[in-house]
Amino acid sequence: MSTATAAAHGPSDPASVELPPAVTRILARHLAAARYEDLPADVRHEGLRTFLNWLGCAVGSARHEAVSIAIDALSPFSGPAQAGILGRAERMDVLHAALINGISSHVFDFDDTHLKTVIHPAGPVASAILALAELRPVSGRDFLNALVLGVDVECRIGNAVYPDHYHVGWHITGTTGVFGAAAAAGKLLGLDEQRMVWALGLAATQPVGLREMFGTMTKSFHPGRAAQNGLTAALLAQRGYTSSEQGIEAKRGWANVTSTHRNYDEITGDLGRRNEILLNSYKPFACGIVIHPAIDGCVQLRNEHGLVAAEIERIDLKVHPLVLELTGKTAPKTGLDGKFSVYHSAAVAIIDGRAGEPQYSDERVRDPEVVGLRDRVTAVIDPAMPADAVAVTVTLKGGRVLQKRVDHAIGSVARPMTDRDLEAKFTDLVQPVHGEAGTAALLRACWDLEALADAGDIARMAQTR
Amino acid sequence: MSTATAAAHGPSDPASVELPPAVTRILARHLAAARYEDLPADVRHEGLRTFLNWLGCAVGSARHEAVSIAIDALSPFSGPAQAGILGRAERMDVLHAALINGISSHVFDFDDTHLKTVIHPAGPVASAILALAELRPVSGRDFLNALVLGVDVECRIGNAVYPDHYHVGWHITGTTGVFGAAAAAGKLLGLDEQRMVWALGLAATQPVGLREMFGTMTKSFHPGRAAQNGLTAALLAQRGYTSSEQGIEAKRGWANVTSTHRNYDEITGDLGRRNEILLNSYKPFACGIVIHPAIDGCVQLRNEHGLVAAEIERIDLKVHPLVLELTGKTAPKTGLDGKFSVYHSAAVAIIDGRAGEPQYSDERVRDPEVVGLRDRVTAVIDPAMPADAVAVTVTLKGGRVLQKRVDHAIGSVARPMTDRDLEAKFTDLVQPVHGEAGTAALLRACWDLEALADAGDIARMAQTR
Repeated sequence: MSTATAAAHGPSDPASVELPPAVTRILARHLAAARYEDLPADVRHEGLRTFLNWLGCAVGSARHEAVSIAIDALSPFSGPAQAGILGRAERMDVLHAALINGISSHVFDFDDTHLKTVIHPAGPVASAILALAELRPVSGRDFLNALVLGVDVECRIGNAVYPDHYHVGWHITGTTGVFGAAAAAGKLLGLDEQRMVWALGLAATQPVGLREMFGTMTKSFHPGRAAQNGLTAALLAQRGYTSSEQGIEAKRGWANVTSTHRNYDEITGDLGRRNEILLNSYKPFACGIVIHPAIDGCVQLRNEHGLVAAEIERIDLKVHPLVLELTGKTAPKTGLDGKFSVYHSAAVAIIDGRAGEPQYSDERVRDPEVVGLRDRVTAVIDPAMPADAVAVTVTLKGGRVLQKRVDHAIGSVARPMTDRDLEAKFTDLVQPVHGEAGTAALLRACWDLEALADAGDIARMAQTR
Repeated sequence: MSTATAAAHGPSDPASVELPPAVTRILARHLAAARYEDLPADVRHEGLRTFLNWLGCAVGSARHEAVSIAIDALSPFSGPAQAGILGRAERMDVLHAALINGISSHVFDFDDTHLKTVIHPAGPVASAILALAELRPVSGRDFLNALVLGVDVECRIGNAVYPDHYHVGWHITGTTGVFGAAAAAGKLLGLDEQRMVWALGLAATQPVGLREMFGTMTKSFHPGRAAQNGLTAALLAQRGYTSSEQGIEAKRGWANVTSTHRNYDEITGDLGRRNEILLNSYKPFACGIVIHPAIDGCVQLRNEHGLVAAEIERIDLKVHPLVLELTGKTAPKTGLDGKFSVYHSAAVAIIDGRAGEPQYSDERVRDPEVVGLRDRVTAVIDPAMPADAVAVTVTLKGGRVLQKRVDHAIGSVARPMTDRDLEAKFTDLVQPVHGEAGTAALLRACWDLEALADAGDIARMAQTR
């Protein structure tokens, strides 16, 4: 092809214009070399929080209809019982387990959020590598390193294209999650730089997720399929299945094809020094984020004053306009309805002191005490109220008035959930599945991940018999 | 959510601007109702040609390295031995078999082409439904109906976004192929209209394939993964896994997210009356399409005059400029090199009367008779020569001069391959795997597909022991 080669170096050759940096290769080189020993203590701790929060969500949602349907539909095609479905008794092959656990971890929309990009980072990454760890034993330290790296890769790639990529209509959790899963799984498989390049290329060619799917079961399919696709990419690359050398940055690579704008410095800048997992956040309440300030304010007043529903005359909320637009249901009938009711949410916040999944069961929504208090809640819009703020006024039957202004709701970047908050959330989610002792043991294992010789033990503990 | 509902119907609501037609639902309704009995004879016959050509490619390429690597990498995760890998002895679960057969059918780049969109339509569709047919027996007629529908769906969706979608950088075979596979598999699973809507939604959210992957094994991964994704979509929808009602046409649906332009009439116009499979075409030669005219001209002269290499003094070609730019290798050393040599191609065309995979083996490229004739071929550029034309002049040792002008090479839309041409191509591909008798039997079964009680028989025949 000497003629073609000569032509390719002619003056009109696109290769002579300025090229982007070798983003894919730089990333692959970093991934192949990165070690647990180099992770700072705060990064390791945030990795544990991310993992624990993800595991609680997956176990707590394991009985959701979407999970059961997916298992029913795909079990006839599953390979050997290599990896557990968290919170359930079934075992499937590693690829299917990654898919199903990714679905359950997101189906309540209660998992972690990298607020800068609205990526839910743990789903694609942890679902892929925990399933893989059951087949190929790996230490808790190596597992944590892979988790941190996978989250870093997907969030860095997300930073590079957000918000344009999201505005195009992509569900960024699924489209960047494939890279995170491929990177993390590739790390555990010990891929060298070249094979990591191919794994990222195979990930680039399999983005998952349109925002149009929000409101349907297909939304939770996205992180699950991203986990499965990324794992598949790493497994193929491991055996030498070739792919592009520039899957991310090429003219027709992922970033150009799926976004109208891109900033590659976000991907390659300060690799190993800036860790995106430090920006991860966790939802304290199992409902739309717009009513989190109201719940937070009610919980705080309850705890500060030992409030009891029977003593309360009325609760008045001043809220951001979106609160009534999105969650204005005054008389919810089902648990799911309750998630769209600021009234129900305020009532359970006072009575139970929390708003986890148990507070959004059908039973709780119909409970006479909850309904009684809910009907004494009013909410009015204050156009000046920020989205993460609220003003709560509780009037007691004796006439006493208690007030609470929340400027930044718990779970926001300005006020992260504490480790104890995360434990309470975990317990709420897991206890109905594993009971008190089992939940405590699983929680302990999560915090002790770095001491585990075999990270797959956690998956086995998280299953039911 | 009464407040939200009220807001959603306010004057600034995007829903009050003109909406696209309900493309996804119209398509789903058509798919759920379409019957074999309504297919015109020419459509049925083109369906058989498409199937036969696809099967030959898959069997003939089954030993390619990309296929072997994918099997090695994914076998540990495969489910029960439900479906055969064509041209090989392995059996895998239906989803993996769809993937692997889709890879092998495209890896030589010798499969069918819908020239209007450059989609290779059979790979995603046939790979999905032949694997499925092994698990769930289906008549040859129903199988053919599903194949025709699947090809129609992917090509119609392709028409709606081509060329803009392709220019964005998507490998349109993989991105539209998911829909074709979902539609065809959904048809064989008996999905009703609603479930077909969901299957198309689940397909929309899983597009596969960046053009950046061309030149690597990942290119052939695209039709395979599209088959597997579409099949997964249909299986999930069958069990009630919900998805968007407007996966294709919604504001953040597939067509808006993956293309800069779209024409929905191409999807919904004349459904059941205009059949895109009638525009399908087949490659006669196993090499770049730019040298097809030269091969065609040489084969014609050979057959008309009973040419023998030893009697030929020289061969002179007048060719389109791209021929020397892309295929100007004068001294190829390997079979793959030979595909980029118009000289080698002309020589084997004269000696063998064809240019299938056997003509591009390492042995054939080094054969003394071929090399001797190749060195007597010259090619000069004629800037006025159209891309599908050539002028061939053969000078015999006695001084006699033979000329052939080809205006439209065989395999172009203007001059389709005949059934006999397709049979010869099939035989070239399949005979090295199945021998003479086995190849003849398989060919007969393809033509007799509509008489088969169980279409899966063909997959079983196409396997080796």
